[in-house]
Amino acid sequence: MTGAITTERILALQAAYIRCIDSDALEAWPDLFTDECLYVVTTAENHRLGYQSGIIYADTKGMLVDRVAALRKANVYEKQSYRHIVGLPHIIKNSGSEAEAETPFLVARIMHDGETSIFATGVYLDTYRAAGVDLKFARRLAVCDSSRVDTLMALPL
Amino acid sequence: MTGAITTERILALQAAYIRCIDSDALEAWPDLFTDECLYVVTTAENHRLGYQSGIIYADTKGMLVDRVAALRKANVYEKQSYRHIVGLPHIIKNSGSEAEAETPFLVARIMHDGETSIFATGVYLDTYRAAGVDLKFARRLAVCDSSRVDTLMALPL
Amino acid sequence: MTGAITTERILALQAAYIRCIDSDALEAWPDLFTDECLYVVTTAENHRLGYQSGIIYADTKGMLVDRVAALRKANVYEKQSYRHIVGLPHIIKNSGSEAEAETPFLVARIMHDGETSIFATGVYLDTYRAAGVDLKFARRLAVCDSSRVDTLMALPL
Repeated sequence: MTGAITTERILALQAAYIRCIDSDALEAWPDLFTDECLYVVTTAENHRLGYQSGIIYADTKGMLVDRVAALRKANVYEKQSYRHIVGLPHIIKNSGSEAEAETPFLVARIMHDGETSIFATGVYLDTYRAAGVDLKFARRLAVCDSSRVDTLMALPL
Repeated sequence: MTGAITTERILALQAAYIRCIDSDALEAWPDLFTDECLYVVTTAENHRLGYQSGIIYADTKGMLVDRVAALRKANVYEKQSYRHIVGLPHIIKNSGSEAEAETPFLVARIMHDGETSIFATGVYLDTYRAAGVDLKFARRLAVCDSSRVDTLMALPL
Repeated sequence: MTGAITTERILALQAAYIRCIDSDALEAWPDLFTDECLYVVTTAENHRLGYQSGIIYADTKGMLVDRVAALRKANVYEKQSYRHIVGLPHIIKNSGSEAEAETPFLVARIMHDGETSIFATGVYLDTYRAAGVDLKFARRLAVCDSSRVDTLMALPL
Protein backbone atom coordinates (compact mmCIF):
# COMPACT_ATOMS: atom_id res chain seq x y z
CA MET A 1 0.00 0.00 0.00
CA THR A 2 2.68 2.53 -0.98
CA GLY A 3 2.08 5.29 -3.45
CA ALA A 4 -1.00 7.34 -4.09
CA ILE A 5 -3.76 7.97 -1.56
CA THR A 6 -6.82 5.89 -2.38
CA THR A 7 -10.31 5.70 -0.91
CA GLU A 8 -9.41 2.29 0.47
CA ARG A 9 -6.41 3.65 2.39
CA ILE A 10 -8.54 6.47 3.80
CA LEU A 11 -11.18 3.99 4.96
CA ALA A 12 -8.47 1.88 6.60
CA LEU A 13 -7.00 4.84 8.50
CA GLN A 14 -10.44 5.92 9.71
CA ALA A 15 -11.10 2.41 10.98
CA ALA A 16 -7.71 2.21 12.71
CA TYR A 17 -8.25 5.57 14.40
CA ILE A 18 -11.52 4.80 16.10
CA ARG A 19 -10.29 1.38 17.09
CA CYS A 20 -7.46 2.94 19.10
CA ILE A 21 -9.95 4.91 21.14
CA ASP A 22 -12.82 2.46 21.45
CA SER A 23 -10.66 -0.59 22.20
CA ASP A 24 -8.57 1.13 24.86
CA ALA A 25 -5.41 1.08 22.71
CA LEU A 26 -4.83 4.77 23.16
CA GLU A 27 -1.03 4.47 23.09
CA ALA A 28 -1.26 3.70 19.36
CA TRP A 29 -3.36 6.79 18.67
CA PRO A 30 -0.65 9.51 18.36
CA ASP A 31 1.16 7.40 15.77
CA LEU A 32 -1.69 7.93 13.34
CA PHE A 33 -0.62 11.58 13.08
CA THR A 34 2.40 13.12 11.37
CA ASP A 35 5.04 14.58 13.71
CA GLU A 36 3.89 18.10 12.98
CA CYS A 37 0.17 17.91 13.06
CA LEU A 38 -2.95 19.67 14.14
CA TYR A 39 -5.59 17.98 16.25
CA VAL A 40 -8.47 20.14 17.41
CA VAL A 41 -11.84 19.35 18.94
CA THR A 42 -14.24 22.25 18.60
CA THR A 43 -17.91 23.11 18.11
CA ALA A 44 -19.61 23.99 14.84
CA GLU A 45 -20.39 27.42 16.21
CA ASN A 46 -16.81 28.20 17.21
CA HIS A 47 -15.54 26.79 13.93
CA ARG A 48 -17.92 29.02 11.97
CA LEU A 49 -16.77 32.03 13.95
CA GLY A 50 -13.14 31.20 13.12
CA TYR A 51 -11.99 30.52 16.68
CA GLN A 52 -8.80 28.48 16.72
CA SER A 53 -8.62 27.34 20.30
CA GLY A 54 -11.23 24.62 20.67
CA ILE A 55 -11.97 22.23 23.50
CA ILE A 56 -8.82 20.25 22.79
CA TYR A 57 -5.88 21.72 20.88
CA ALA A 58 -2.62 19.97 20.00
CA ASP A 59 -0.16 20.89 17.29
CA THR A 60 2.55 18.28 17.73
CA LYS A 61 2.50 14.53 18.12
CA GLY A 62 4.26 15.03 21.45
CA MET A 63 1.21 16.83 22.81
CA LEU A 64 -0.93 13.84 21.86
CA VAL A 65 1.46 11.48 23.64
CA ASP A 66 1.27 13.68 26.76
CA ARG A 67 -2.50 13.62 26.60
CA VAL A 68 -2.56 9.81 26.57
CA ALA A 69 -0.25 9.70 29.58
CA ALA A 70 -2.55 12.06 31.48
CA LEU A 71 -5.60 9.97 30.61
CA ARG A 72 -3.90 6.82 31.87
CA LYS A 73 -3.16 8.53 35.17
CA ALA A 74 -6.80 9.58 35.45
CA ASN A 75 -8.02 6.04 34.70
CA VAL A 76 -10.79 7.34 32.46
CA TYR A 77 -11.49 3.95 30.90
CA GLU A 78 -12.79 2.67 34.20
CA LYS A 79 -15.56 5.21 34.13
CA GLN A 80 -16.76 5.10 30.56
CA SER A 81 -16.13 3.94 27.05
CA TYR A 82 -16.90 5.35 23.63
CA ARG A 83 -18.20 3.74 20.49
CA HIS A 84 -17.46 5.72 17.34
CA ILE A 85 -19.48 5.16 14.21
CA VAL A 86 -17.97 7.01 11.27
CA GLY A 87 -19.77 7.50 8.00
CA LEU A 88 -18.35 7.60 4.51
CA PRO A 89 -15.60 10.13 3.75
CA HIS A 90 -16.35 12.86 1.23
CA ILE A 91 -13.04 13.43 -0.55
CA ILE A 92 -12.62 17.09 -1.46
CA LYS A 93 -9.20 16.96 -3.06
CA ASN A 94 -6.49 14.40 -3.55
CA SER A 95 -3.10 15.18 -5.03
CA GLY A 96 -1.93 11.61 -4.51
CA SER A 97 0.40 12.45 -1.62
CA GLU A 98 -2.01 14.69 0.29
CA ALA A 99 -5.78 14.61 0.46
CA GLU A 100 -8.61 16.44 2.18
CA ALA A 101 -11.85 14.83 3.21
CA GLU A 102 -14.83 15.33 5.49
CA THR A 103 -16.16 12.38 7.44
CA PRO A 104 -19.26 12.45 9.67
CA PHE A 105 -19.19 10.77 13.06
CA LEU A 106 -21.48 9.76 15.88
CA VAL A 107 -20.06 8.80 19.24
CA ALA A 108 -22.05 6.86 21.82
CA ARG A 109 -20.85 6.94 25.41
CA ILE A 110 -21.32 3.88 27.60
CA MET A 111 -21.07 4.61 31.30
CA HIS A 112 -19.74 2.07 33.77
CA ASP A 113 -23.29 1.13 34.82
CA GLY A 114 -24.15 0.34 31.19
CA GLU A 115 -26.15 3.46 30.38
CA THR A 116 -25.70 4.39 26.72
CA SER A 117 -26.38 7.74 25.08
CA ILE A 118 -25.34 9.85 22.10
CA PHE A 119 -22.28 11.69 23.36
CA ALA A 120 -21.45 13.71 20.26
CA THR A 121 -22.15 14.02 16.55
CA GLY A 122 -20.18 16.03 14.06
CA VAL A 123 -17.75 15.95 11.20
CA TYR A 124 -14.02 15.33 10.95
CA LEU A 125 -12.26 17.82 8.67
CA ASP A 126 -9.11 15.95 7.75
CA THR A 127 -5.90 16.36 5.83
CA TYR A 128 -4.19 13.06 5.04
CA ARG A 129 -0.53 12.71 4.13
CA ALA A 130 1.12 9.67 2.56
CA ALA A 131 4.66 8.73 3.52
CA GLY A 132 5.73 5.45 1.94
CA VAL A 133 3.53 2.65 3.24
CA ASP A 134 1.96 4.91 5.85
CA LEU A 135 -1.01 7.20 5.62
CA LYS A 136 -1.32 9.66 8.49
CA PHE A 137 -3.38 12.58 9.63
CA ALA A 138 -1.60 15.89 9.11
CA ARG A 139 -4.68 17.66 10.40
CA ARG A 140 -7.84 16.46 12.12
CA LEU A 141 -10.49 18.92 13.23
CA ALA A 142 -13.33 17.21 15.07
CA VAL A 143 -16.19 19.70 14.72
CA CYS A 144 -19.04 18.83 17.09
CA ASP A 145 -22.59 19.76 16.08
CA SER A 146 -23.79 20.55 19.55
CA SER A 147 -22.66 23.53 21.55
CA ARG A 148 -23.39 21.50 24.67
CA VAL A 149 -20.50 19.08 24.20
CA ASP A 150 -18.75 18.23 27.45
CA THR A 151 -15.83 20.64 27.77
CA LEU A 152 -14.23 18.41 30.37
CA MET A 153 -14.06 15.75 27.70
CA ALA A 154 -11.97 12.85 28.90
CA LEU A 155 -11.19 10.77 25.83
CA PRO A 156 -10.27 12.23 22.44
CA LEU A 157 -12.95 12.18 19.76
CA MET B 1 -14.54 8.27 -13.07
CA THR B 2 -16.49 7.77 -16.31
CA GLY B 3 -17.89 4.45 -17.34
CA ALA B 4 -19.35 1.70 -15.23
CA ILE B 5 -20.95 2.17 -11.83
CA THR B 6 -18.61 0.92 -9.10
CA THR B 7 -18.98 0.55 -5.35
CA GLU B 8 -16.54 3.42 -4.94
CA ARG B 9 -18.68 5.79 -7.02
CA ILE B 10 -21.77 4.79 -5.03
CA LEU B 11 -19.95 5.49 -1.75
CA ALA B 12 -18.84 8.88 -3.08
CA LEU B 13 -22.38 9.88 -4.09
CA GLN B 14 -23.76 8.83 -0.71
CA ALA B 15 -21.13 10.93 1.03
CA ALA B 16 -21.79 13.95 -1.19
CA TYR B 17 -25.54 13.69 -0.58
CA ILE B 18 -25.48 13.84 3.19
CA ARG B 19 -22.84 16.56 3.12
CA CYS B 20 -25.22 18.84 1.19
CA ILE B 21 -27.80 18.53 3.94
CA ASP B 22 -25.62 18.42 7.04
CA SER B 23 -23.26 21.22 5.97
CA ASP B 24 -26.02 23.61 4.97
CA ALA B 25 -25.16 23.39 1.26
CA LEU B 26 -28.70 22.57 0.29
CA GLU B 27 -28.52 24.37 -3.05
CA ALA B 28 -26.21 21.61 -4.31
CA TRP B 29 -28.64 18.87 -3.29
CA PRO B 30 -31.03 18.81 -6.29
CA ASP B 31 -28.09 18.40 -8.64
CA LEU B 32 -27.41 14.95 -7.24
CA PHE B 33 -30.62 13.80 -8.94
CA THR B 34 -31.36 13.23 -12.62
CA ASP B 35 -33.78 15.72 -14.21
CA GLU B 36 -36.60 13.24 -14.13
CA CYS B 37 -36.34 11.65 -10.76
CA LEU B 38 -38.30 10.37 -7.83
CA TYR B 39 -37.59 11.49 -4.29
CA VAL B 40 -39.94 10.22 -1.62
CA VAL B 41 -39.80 10.18 2.15
CA THR B 42 -42.20 7.66 3.63
CA THR B 43 -42.65 5.24 6.51
CA ALA B 44 -41.96 1.50 6.48
CA GLU B 45 -45.62 0.87 7.15
CA ASN B 46 -46.87 3.02 4.27
CA HIS B 47 -44.23 1.54 1.99
CA ARG B 48 -45.32 -1.98 2.88
CA LEU B 49 -48.94 -1.07 2.17
CA GLY B 50 -47.93 0.28 -1.24
CA TYR B 51 -48.88 3.90 -0.62
CA GLN B 52 -47.15 6.20 -3.08
CA SER B 53 -47.65 9.59 -1.50
CA GLY B 54 -45.29 9.76 1.45
CA ILE B 55 -44.34 12.61 3.73
CA ILE B 56 -42.35 14.28 0.97
CA TYR B 57 -42.96 13.53 -2.70
CA ALA B 58 -41.10 15.05 -5.66
CA ASP B 59 -40.83 13.67 -9.18
CA THR B 60 -38.76 16.31 -10.93
CA LYS B 61 -35.56 18.07 -10.06
CA GLY B 62 -37.49 21.35 -10.28
CA MET B 63 -39.61 20.31 -7.30
CA LEU B 64 -36.43 19.74 -5.29
CA VAL B 65 -35.16 23.20 -6.23
CA ASP B 66 -38.48 24.70 -5.11
CA ARG B 67 -38.22 22.87 -1.84
CA VAL B 68 -34.80 24.30 -1.12
CA ALA B 69 -36.05 27.83 -1.86
CA ALA B 70 -38.94 27.33 0.58
CA LEU B 71 -36.56 26.05 3.28
CA ARG B 72 -34.33 29.09 2.87
CA LYS B 73 -37.31 31.37 3.33
CA ALA B 74 -38.27 29.51 6.49
CA ASN B 75 -34.72 29.74 7.87
CA VAL B 76 -34.84 26.17 9.12
CA TYR B 77 -31.09 25.94 9.68
CA GLU B 78 -31.31 28.46 12.48
CA LYS B 79 -33.49 26.13 14.47
CA GLN B 80 -31.80 22.78 14.01
CA SER B 81 -29.28 20.74 12.12
CA TYR B 82 -29.05 17.12 11.09
CA ARG B 83 -26.22 14.65 11.16
CA HIS B 84 -26.66 11.71 8.81
CA ILE B 85 -24.73 8.51 9.36
CA VAL B 86 -25.17 6.15 6.44
CA GLY B 87 -24.16 2.53 6.55
CA LEU B 88 -22.78 0.38 3.78
CA PRO B 89 -24.82 0.06 0.57
CA HIS B 90 -26.17 -3.38 -0.31
CA ILE B 91 -26.01 -3.49 -4.10
CA ILE B 92 -28.92 -5.47 -5.52
CA LYS B 93 -28.23 -5.09 -9.22
CA ASN B 94 -25.80 -3.21 -11.35
CA SER B 95 -25.96 -3.12 -15.16
CA GLY B 96 -23.01 -0.76 -15.32
CA SER B 97 -25.08 2.28 -16.31
CA GLU B 98 -27.85 1.78 -13.75
CA ALA B 99 -27.74 0.21 -10.31
CA GLU B 100 -30.04 -0.46 -7.39
CA ALA B 101 -28.93 -0.51 -3.80
CA GLU B 102 -30.27 -0.29 -0.27
CA THR B 103 -28.41 1.82 2.27
CA PRO B 104 -29.35 2.14 5.95
CA PHE B 105 -29.30 5.52 7.62
CA LEU B 106 -29.54 7.08 11.04
CA VAL B 107 -30.17 10.80 11.40
CA ALA B 108 -29.46 12.68 14.61
CA ARG B 109 -31.12 16.07 15.06
CA ILE B 110 -29.30 18.80 16.96
CA MET B 111 -31.55 21.57 18.21
CA HIS B 112 -30.36 25.13 18.55
CA ASP B 113 -29.85 24.69 22.30
CA GLY B 114 -27.56 21.74 21.63
CA GLU B 115 -29.95 18.94 22.52
CA THR B 116 -29.22 15.87 20.38
CA SER B 117 -31.53 12.93 19.69
CA ILE B 118 -32.18 10.22 17.12
CA PHE B 119 -34.48 11.90 14.63
CA ALA B 120 -34.99 9.02 12.21
CA THR B 121 -33.64 5.64 11.18
CA GLY B 122 -34.44 3.77 8.02
CA VAL B 123 -33.20 2.66 4.66
CA TYR B 124 -32.66 4.42 1.36
CA LEU B 125 -33.97 2.44 -1.61
CA ASP B 126 -32.00 3.91 -4.48
CA THR B 127 -31.64 3.71 -8.22
CA TYR B 128 -28.37 5.19 -9.49
CA ARG B 129 -27.78 6.29 -13.07
CA ALA B 130 -24.41 7.03 -14.66
CA ALA B 131 -24.07 9.81 -17.24
CA GLY B 132 -20.47 10.34 -18.27
CA VAL B 133 -18.45 11.44 -15.28
CA ASP B 134 -21.55 11.90 -13.15
CA LEU B 135 -23.43 9.46 -11.04
CA LYS B 136 -26.87 10.59 -9.96
CA PHE B 137 -29.94 9.39 -8.16
CA ALA B 138 -32.76 8.50 -10.54
CA ARG B 139 -34.81 7.40 -7.56
CA ARG B 140 -34.38 7.76 -3.82
CA LEU B 141 -36.99 6.44 -1.41
CA ALA B 142 -36.17 7.27 2.19
CA VAL B 143 -38.16 4.69 4.13
CA CYS B 144 -38.30 5.60 7.83
CA ASP B 145 -38.60 2.79 10.37
CA SER B 146 -40.77 4.67 12.79
CA SER B 147 -44.37 5.61 12.13
CA ARG B 148 -43.85 8.55 14.48
CA VAL B 149 -41.57 10.46 12.13
CA ASP B 150 -42.24 14.19 12.15
CA THR B 151 -44.65 14.84 9.28
CA LEU B 152 -43.81 18.53 9.36
CA MET B 153 -40.27 17.54 8.51
CA ALA B 154 -38.23 20.60 7.69
CA LEU B 155 -35.06 19.34 6.03
CA PRO B 156 -34.93 16.51 3.52
CA LEU B 157 -33.66 13.16 4.72
CA MET C 1 -15.89 -12.10 -7.31
CA THR C 2 -13.97 -15.34 -6.83
CA GLY C 3 -10.49 -15.46 -5.46
CA ALA C 4 -8.88 -13.39 -2.76
CA ILE C 5 -10.73 -11.61 0.02
CA THR C 6 -10.87 -7.89 -0.67
CA THR C 7 -12.15 -4.93 1.34
CA GLU C 8 -14.97 -4.62 -1.16
CA ARG C 9 -16.14 -8.20 -0.57
CA ILE C 10 -16.02 -7.65 3.19
CA LEU C 11 -18.13 -4.49 2.87
CA ALA C 12 -20.64 -6.36 0.73
CA LEU C 13 -21.00 -9.21 3.26
CA GLN C 14 -21.47 -6.74 6.12
CA ALA C 15 -24.19 -4.97 4.16
CA ALA C 16 -25.92 -8.23 3.28
CA TYR C 17 -25.84 -9.38 6.90
CA ILE C 18 -27.60 -6.43 8.43
CA ARG C 19 -30.09 -6.33 5.60
CA CYS C 20 -31.25 -9.88 6.49
CA ILE C 21 -32.08 -8.76 10.00
CA ASP C 22 -33.40 -5.26 9.43
CA SER C 23 -35.52 -6.13 6.39
CA ASP C 24 -37.17 -9.13 7.99
CA ALA C 25 -35.39 -11.59 5.68
CA LEU C 26 -34.11 -13.67 8.54
CA GLU C 27 -34.31 -16.95 6.64
CA ALA C 28 -31.35 -15.80 4.53
CA TRP C 29 -29.25 -15.02 7.60
CA PRO C 30 -27.81 -18.49 8.44
CA ASP C 31 -26.53 -18.82 4.88
CA LEU C 32 -24.03 -16.05 5.48
CA PHE C 33 -22.17 -18.43 7.81
CA THR C 34 -20.04 -21.44 6.97
CA ASP C 35 -21.51 -24.80 8.00
CA GLU C 36 -19.21 -25.04 10.97
CA CYS C 37 -19.25 -21.64 12.45
CA LEU C 38 -19.30 -19.71 15.68
CA TYR C 39 -21.86 -17.04 16.37
CA VAL C 40 -21.79 -15.51 19.82
CA VAL C 41 -23.40 -12.41 21.32
CA THR C 42 -21.68 -11.35 24.51
CA THR C 43 -20.73 -8.31 26.57
CA ALA C 44 -17.37 -6.54 26.59
CA GLU C 45 -16.96 -7.44 30.25
CA ASN C 46 -17.61 -11.16 29.75
CA HIS C 47 -15.39 -11.17 26.68
CA ARG C 48 -12.55 -9.58 28.63
CA LEU C 49 -12.95 -12.16 31.37
CA GLY C 50 -12.72 -14.95 28.79
CA TYR C 51 -16.23 -16.33 29.28
CA GLN C 52 -17.31 -18.39 26.30
CA SER C 53 -21.02 -18.70 26.83
CA GLY C 54 -22.53 -15.34 25.98
CA ILE C 55 -26.12 -14.24 25.61
CA ILE C 56 -26.50 -16.16 22.37
CA TYR C 57 -24.23 -19.06 21.46
CA ALA C 58 -24.37 -21.14 18.29
CA ASP C 59 -21.64 -23.25 16.78
CA THR C 60 -23.31 -24.74 13.74
CA LYS C 61 -25.37 -23.27 10.95
CA GLY C 62 -28.17 -25.63 12.01
CA MET C 63 -28.44 -23.83 15.35
CA LEU C 64 -28.90 -20.56 13.51
CA VAL C 65 -31.65 -22.08 11.37
CA ASP C 66 -33.38 -23.32 14.53
CA ARG C 67 -33.16 -19.87 16.03
CA VAL C 68 -34.88 -18.30 13.04
CA ALA C 69 -37.68 -20.86 13.25
CA ALA C 70 -38.19 -20.03 16.93
CA LEU C 71 -38.29 -16.31 16.20
CA ARG C 72 -40.91 -16.80 13.53
CA LYS C 73 -43.06 -18.72 15.98
CA ALA C 74 -42.71 -15.89 18.49
CA ASN C 75 -43.64 -13.27 15.87
CA VAL C 76 -40.96 -10.92 17.13
CA TYR C 77 -41.12 -8.66 14.09
CA GLU C 78 -44.59 -7.56 15.04
CA LYS C 79 -43.29 -6.07 18.24
CA GLN C 80 -40.12 -4.31 17.13
CA SER C 81 -37.57 -3.83 14.44
CA TYR C 82 -33.88 -3.10 14.42
CA ARG C 83 -31.76 -0.76 12.37
CA HIS C 84 -28.08 -1.67 12.27
CA ILE C 85 -25.49 0.93 11.35
CA VAL C 86 -22.09 -0.66 10.91
CA GLY C 87 -18.90 1.33 10.68
CA LEU C 88 -15.81 0.61 8.64
CA PRO C 89 -14.06 -2.73 9.13
CA HIS C 90 -10.55 -2.69 10.55
CA ILE C 91 -8.83 -5.59 8.80
CA ILE C 92 -6.34 -7.26 11.13
CA LYS C 93 -5.10 -10.01 8.87
CA ASN C 94 -5.93 -11.35 5.45
CA SER C 95 -4.37 -14.46 3.97
CA GLY C 96 -6.50 -14.19 0.85
CA SER C 97 -8.75 -17.11 1.75
CA GLU C 98 -9.32 -16.16 5.38
CA ALA C 99 -9.40 -12.76 7.02
CA GLU C 100 -9.99 -11.25 10.44
CA ALA C 101 -11.54 -7.87 11.00
CA GLU C 102 -13.22 -5.78 13.66
CA THR C 103 -16.28 -3.75 12.73
CA PRO C 104 -18.12 -1.38 15.09
CA PHE C 105 -21.91 -1.37 15.19
CA LEU C 106 -24.78 0.60 16.59
CA VAL C 107 -28.27 -0.88 16.65
CA ALA C 108 -31.38 1.24 17.07
CA ARG C 109 -34.57 -0.50 18.15
CA ILE C 110 -37.90 0.76 16.86
CA MET C 111 -40.86 -0.38 18.92
CA HIS C 112 -44.27 -0.97 17.38
CA ASP C 113 -45.50 2.42 18.62
CA GLY C 114 -42.62 4.12 16.81
CA GLU C 115 -40.40 4.81 19.81
CA THR C 116 -36.74 4.66 18.78
CA SER C 117 -33.72 4.22 21.03
CA ILE C 118 -30.15 2.96 20.99
CA PHE C 119 -30.50 -0.75 21.66
CA ALA C 120 -26.85 -1.75 21.58
CA THR C 121 -23.40 -0.61 20.54
CA GLY C 122 -20.33 -2.73 20.21
CA VAL C 123 -17.91 -4.40 17.87
CA TYR C 124 -18.09 -7.46 15.66
CA LEU C 125 -14.98 -9.64 15.90
CA ASP C 126 -15.14 -11.58 12.65
CA THR C 127 -13.36 -14.30 10.76
CA TYR C 128 -14.23 -14.39 7.06
CA ARG C 129 -13.70 -17.40 4.82
CA ALA C 130 -13.77 -17.39 1.02
CA ALA C 131 -15.17 -20.38 -0.87
CA GLY C 132 -15.30 -19.74 -4.61
CA VAL C 133 -17.69 -16.88 -5.30
CA ASP C 134 -18.90 -16.83 -1.73
CA LEU C 135 -17.55 -15.03 1.27
CA LYS C 136 -18.95 -16.22 4.60
CA PHE C 137 -18.55 -15.72 8.31
CA ALA C 138 -16.61 -18.56 9.93
CA ARG C 139 -16.85 -16.70 13.22
CA ARG C 140 -18.81 -13.68 14.37
CA LEU C 141 -18.57 -12.47 17.95
CA ALA C 142 -20.90 -9.55 18.61
CA VAL C 143 -19.35 -7.92 21.68
CA CYS C 144 -21.76 -5.40 23.24
CA ASP C 145 -20.32 -2.41 25.07
CA SER C 146 -22.98 -2.24 27.71
CA SER C 147 -23.43 -4.80 30.44
CA ARG C 148 -27.09 -3.86 30.49
CA VAL C 149 -27.90 -5.43 27.14
CA ASP C 150 -31.23 -7.22 27.07
CA THR C 151 -30.50 -10.85 27.87
CA LEU C 152 -33.88 -11.85 26.53
CA MET C 153 -32.74 -10.51 23.19
CA ALA C 154 -35.21 -11.44 20.50
CA LEU C 155 -33.48 -10.79 17.19
CA PRO C 156 -29.85 -11.60 16.49
CA LEU C 157 -27.40 -8.72 16.48
